[in-house]
Amino acid sequence: MATVTATSVADICAAAKRAATQLAALPSGVKNGALEAIAAALVERTPEILEANARDLEAGREAGLTDALMDRLALDSGRVATVAGQVRDIAALPDPVGEVIEGRRLYNGLEVRKVRVPLGVIAVVYEARPNVTIDAAALCLKSGNSIVLRGSSMAAASNAVLAAVAIEAGLSAGLPPGFMALVAGGGHEELSELATQAGVVDLIIPRGGEGLKAALKGVATVPVMYAASGNCHVYVDASADLADALAITLNAKIQRPSVCNAAETLLVHSAVADEFLPAALDALAEAGVELRADARARSLARPSVDVAEATEEDWATEYHALTLAVGVVDSVDEAIEHVNRYGSGHSEAIVTGDLAAAERFTREVDAAAVVVNASTRFVDGAEFGLGAEIGISTQKLHVRGPMGLEALTCVKHVVHGDGQVRR
Amino acid sequence: MATVTATSVADICAAAKRAATQLAALPSGVKNGALEAIAAALVERTPEILEANARDLEAGREAGLTDALMDRLALDSGRVATVAGQVRDIAALPDPVGEVIEGRRLYNGLEVRKVRVPLGVIAVVYEARPNVTIDAAALCLKSGNSIVLRGSSMAAASNAVLAAVAIEAGLSAGLPPGFMALVAGGGHEELSELATQAGVVDLIIPRGGEGLKAALKGVATVPVMYAASGNCHVYVDASADLADALAITLNAKIQRPSVCNAAETLLVHSAVADEFLPAALDALAEAGVELRADARARSLARPSVDVAEATEEDWATEYHALTLAVGVVDSVDEAIEHVNRYGSGHSEAIVTGDLAAAERFTREVDAAAVVVNASTRFVDGAEFGLGAEIGISTQKLHVRGPMGLEALTCVKHVVHGDGQVRR
Repeated sequence: MATVTATSVADICAAAKRAATQLAALPSGVKNGALEAIAAALVERTPEILEANARDLEAGREAGLTDALMDRLALDSGRVATVAGQVRDIAALPDPVGEVIEGRRLYNGLEVRKVRVPLGVIAVVYEARPNVTIDAAALCLKSGNSIVLRGSSMAAASNAVLAAVAIEAGLSAGLPPGFMALVAGGGHEELSELATQAGVVDLIIPRGGEGLKAALKGVATVPVMYAASGNCHVYVDASADLADALAITLNAKIQRPSVCNAAETLLVHSAVADEFLPAALDALAEAGVELRADARARSLARPSVDVAEATEEDWATEYHALTLAVGVVDSVDEAIEHVNRYGSGHSEAIVTGDLAAAERFTREVDAAAVVVNASTRFVDGAEFGLGAEIGISTQKLHVRGPMGLEALTCVKHVVHGDGQVRR
Repeated sequence: MATVTATSVADICAAAKRAATQLAALPSGVKNGALEAIAAALVERTPEILEANARDLEAGREAGLTDALMDRLALDSGRVATVAGQVRDIAALPDPVGEVIEGRRLYNGLEVRKVRVPLGVIAVVYEARPNVTIDAAALCLKSGNSIVLRGSSMAAASNAVLAAVAIEAGLSAGLPPGFMALVAGGGHEELSELATQAGVVDLIIPRGGEGLKAALKGVATVPVMYAASGNCHVYVDASADLADALAITLNAKIQRPSVCNAAETLLVHSAVADEFLPAALDALAEAGVELRADARARSLARPSVDVAEATEEDWATEYHALTLAVGVVDSVDEAIEHVNRYGSGHSEAIVTGDLAAAERFTREVDAAAVVVNASTRFVDGAEFGLGAEIGISTQKLHVRGPMGLEALTCVKHVVHGDGQVRR
């Protein structure tokens, strides 16, 4: 592979930084043309990509990867076409670069504009999901950043071909050399070398589980944007429409339990617990949900429904699976307190017909998103109309909530005068 | 002092977090009323404040503080009145909290609003400048945050009285207990305890020199917003109006050399160096500026002007003093390269009459602010119309450039539905 060389991480990042200046100035047309070229090349060179992927899968089988990991690693022509389609979707999004966010003329005649510009060099470190190679590159390219990727050694062959295809297509379409690079090794050494390129790499984004984030937290001197974990709640208030409450609870828990905006805890106001919980617990159990509840909720479960006792740890756990903690509270205050205590500040829902309760909940719950009478599953870049997301942030600084293309940009103040000096 | 108790840092922060929920919901009127009350109390209790300050000054004299440090520490009735006036100025600013930044109805009828909310608990650590006690508290209060202060032991008595005055006035005006607190000790232990309250403290802001920042960098798990150092440049292009160039250079260097937006290096295009530099170096030297220049610039200095040889270190140094590095470059490209290599990404100026050169410089220089034909000294929150600033950020994430009240806020997504679930 021409793209994966023995060059050092520092050299790769320096080349990316040189490319970044040129990328920042590229008109949208050139970037979109390159994205189209990348999408076309992916489809055209699918056999080559699948061949490399087969080598990774073979090695994975030998290494005894779980079915879930094998599934994440596997590509087929349908999946490659989907990835190509997403690249085209990103091309179709508005260009965030060059947006004049605000501007004014000052008292002394100076003209000040606050303009959106790319961050510069973005590093993305990820696990054995080859599609991230293209997905992340397309987002960075669209937002005018160069990208340095460090994937997992388990997907080394797939990543190398995918990167080669994208780099060759991008260069042919007029992108500057260095716009995209894949670091050869997938080890911890490469990770920490990448994470300490302060002044060269402007942002590092981990796309993977808690282990990857922890590895980064220990070493990074470059700013890191962590995609969130989500310990999300559905609170069924005293005045809730109970049919809505049941539908929202089931949807938030079951529709896709492995994602960060799925619900992990159900809280029910004591005034409606008798009426709501027996049927709700039944329906959840029927759907295959393992239940862990406090004493009051357990006492309301029908005898046929198996409900374990919830421990302190259950309230704090993001199961990422068909498991749900269930508790009864006596007021919206108690619900808010529970959510603020155990939640991860991701997406929190209340089901209520009471305006004051909705106001209290949305105002006092400290989270990226608060949802009234709808499923937590809607908190998502695509659903919110951002077109594509890098993840959902629960940090408060820079970006909170779904991270779209704007999360990959910053601002520059451009000041024009005609000789002004300060008194 | 009732305000400085033996309570632990963790307890103080927990109380601040409880207060934060209430502060977030306070109407502007209450916050502004409290700010007015604080301003009035400062003026009214000036004798008490000056008495405490006299004790700090006495101790400082005994400890042999430099004149500059003594000056920063000293208060008099005029300075207290100025601080009170700044509190009133902050009261008069628009409230950033509650601003609906954007909002829309989604395809499925969900209504999404992105609303500006306070960060929560902000810690400010600072050196022996008692005015920061009030200044920082006013900014945090206006933006709906609670504040935990950790000052220097050198200003302990002054800070304690100032905090007591503000806390008492704030509580009388209806602010929740815990809205403001001063950590008793000014040692490194308190600093690191404060900087590791992740999940309780939402942001820590150092207001002081490099030593304080370095101390924080080693320990902080809480997000930190560093006010910037500024290695700023003035580049005089081939097509510059040389009278403007001289005025801008002198202003950027001399008007207030101790601040971060003062110029530290002058770059001159070789096409105008012969004409510009002899007189410019003369004028700078006359104004008391110590000069360090490259060979070409030195050769153009009049014999009467003393110019030392610039070392590699000079190009990278923020002097914070009447010293200036001077270099000659052969093109706008070379100037941009020099600025991007040595600059700290703060404020960079070009003096030019050439549109293409201005475009290149503003586009390719990677800095919080790029200035065409004006002094770098204008890059400032007050000058930009933000009303008050916490500092100027050279980081790219969250806020870049002058940090006003908005830098102390984040967003929350508020979603309203009527039972929507995701398919």
